[in-house]
Amino acid sequence: MHQEIINLHPHPSSLDRDALLRCIDDCLDCAASCTACADACLGESDLPELVRCIRLNLDCADACDATGRIVTRQTAPDLRLIITMIEACAAACVACAEECERHAAHHEHCRVCAAVCRSCKQACDDLLATIV
Amino acid sequence: MHQEIINLHPHPSSLDRDALLRCIDDCLDCAASCTACADACLGESDLPELVRCIRLNLDCADACDATGRIVTRQTAPDLRLIITMIEACAAACVACAEECERHAAHHEHCRVCAAVCRSCKQACDDLLATIV
Amino acid sequence: MHQEIINLHPHPSSLDRDALLRCIDDCLDCAASCTACADACLGESDLPELVRCIRLNLDCADACDATGRIVTRQTAPDLRLIITMIEACAAACVACAEECERHAAHHEHCRVCAAVCRSCKQACDDLLATIV
Amino acid sequence: MHQEIINLHPHPSSLDRDALLRCIDDCLDCAASCTACADACLGESDLPELVRCIRLNLDCADACDATGRIVTRQTAPDLRLIITMIEACAAACVACAEECERHAAHHEHCRVCAAVCRSCKQACDDLLATIV
Repeated sequence: MHQEIINLHPHPSSLDRDALLRCIDDCLDCAASCTACADACLGESDLPELVRCIRLNLDCADACDATGRIVTRQTAPDLRLIITMIEACAAACVACAEECERHAAHHEHCRVCAAVCRSCKQACDDLLATIV
Repeated sequence: MHQEIINLHPHPSSLDRDALLRCIDDCLDCAASCTACADACLGESDLPELVRCIRLNLDCADACDATGRIVTRQTAPDLRLIITMIEACAAACVACAEECERHAAHHEHCRVCAAVCRSCKQACDDLLATIV
Repeated sequence: MHQEIINLHPHPSSLDRDALLRCIDDCLDCAASCTACADACLGESDLPELVRCIRLNLDCADACDATGRIVTRQTAPDLRLIITMIEACAAACVACAEECERHAAHHEHCRVCAAVCRSCKQACDDLLATIV
Repeated sequence: MHQEIINLHPHPSSLDRDALLRCIDDCLDCAASCTACADACLGESDLPELVRCIRLNLDCADACDATGRIVTRQTAPDLRLIITMIEACAAACVACAEECERHAAHHEHCRVCAAVCRSCKQACDDLLATIV
């Protein structure tokens, strides 16, 4: 329902509506996916192989969470702040996707999480392309 | 896709699966809705009437965000921690819903946000009912 | 410096000032300590023994982060929301402290983190005692 | 005490220790300061003049919170992720400082918050200078 609330803003931002909503939704899904993947990795028997995956999952969850909140706000935005934040989010998604992909053959949760990160990276790039 | 990752955990928690997934999804949606409603309120011409609404939106977003992360984790949970966190989340949702409802007639975003908060409160209660 | 800003609020909350500031500072320090302890645990050679410690560190960081933000706000508070949130934070601190203490003899970071969690739990209890 | 835990990491990161600890502390203080300044602004009688200040305070709090968590982690870091995140944090601090400075003559909390944001921006730049 948050999409509906975003669309009800009294002074909607000038950002491309579809690209904005997709970026927000992907950030939310990616933050939750990375939190869940880090937790699933913690339960695996080959845990020592997954240390870097957990660390990047945690970073990516934090970056996506903050970015999702910031791009949700439409009142009086600062474009440079938004652009650099989306760039940081995209970098976090790439780093996490690459590491998750290394474990995709052994762990389904890493395979799915990598796909979510790739999608979120694309949503960030697409939103950036409508801004700059 | 985060639901799929949660279902791929090597040692799923013993919590009721449907109640858990609904609580997680409602927490994510409610956190994003409250962030968006606070921001929409900031753009309204009757802003001084909406001060308490903004404050409770911010609180509810923070409570739902933390609760969503915590209930997402299935590895080695502490039940008392989880129960008190869900109770705090439910209290935040009720407080925010009641305030949003006071503005529902004038602001569609408050009307929708109140409904999201009520739904999340119910999801918290339903998950608690399966635990205690 | 955030303490100074809190003291400059135009309508300070009626909560006990010393108890409030100590709770905020302890929540900030505990959130950062738990994030650092989870990360230090990830680097230890006996990582499989530390799975529950990492999980509770992550939960406690999230609970303290949200609670720190909520008790920082003084405008138009909802007391029930604040009380349940502080209770959840105290429960998270106890759970994390107990687990960290199990590893305190082998890991200095767990020993220090347990002390931070105990202090934050006490700060939560002390603030609650001034409210209820 | 979180500084002590960071120093007890079994495999400390290669980042400059002093610059790292200062950046972490400034991110924590700036996140809390921006949360408190947004809340103080909500209580002011000239609230409509402070809309942009509140919005940028919220953004800066989220950026500093995520950055503080990410730079706290020393296990298996991804440098590009860290660099872009610190850059986003610096951009958030500049945007928030500039807006807070516009209100510094009328609101002490904005004056103090601007100084905190400027300090955090410098800490980010100094840490970046040791990396790149």
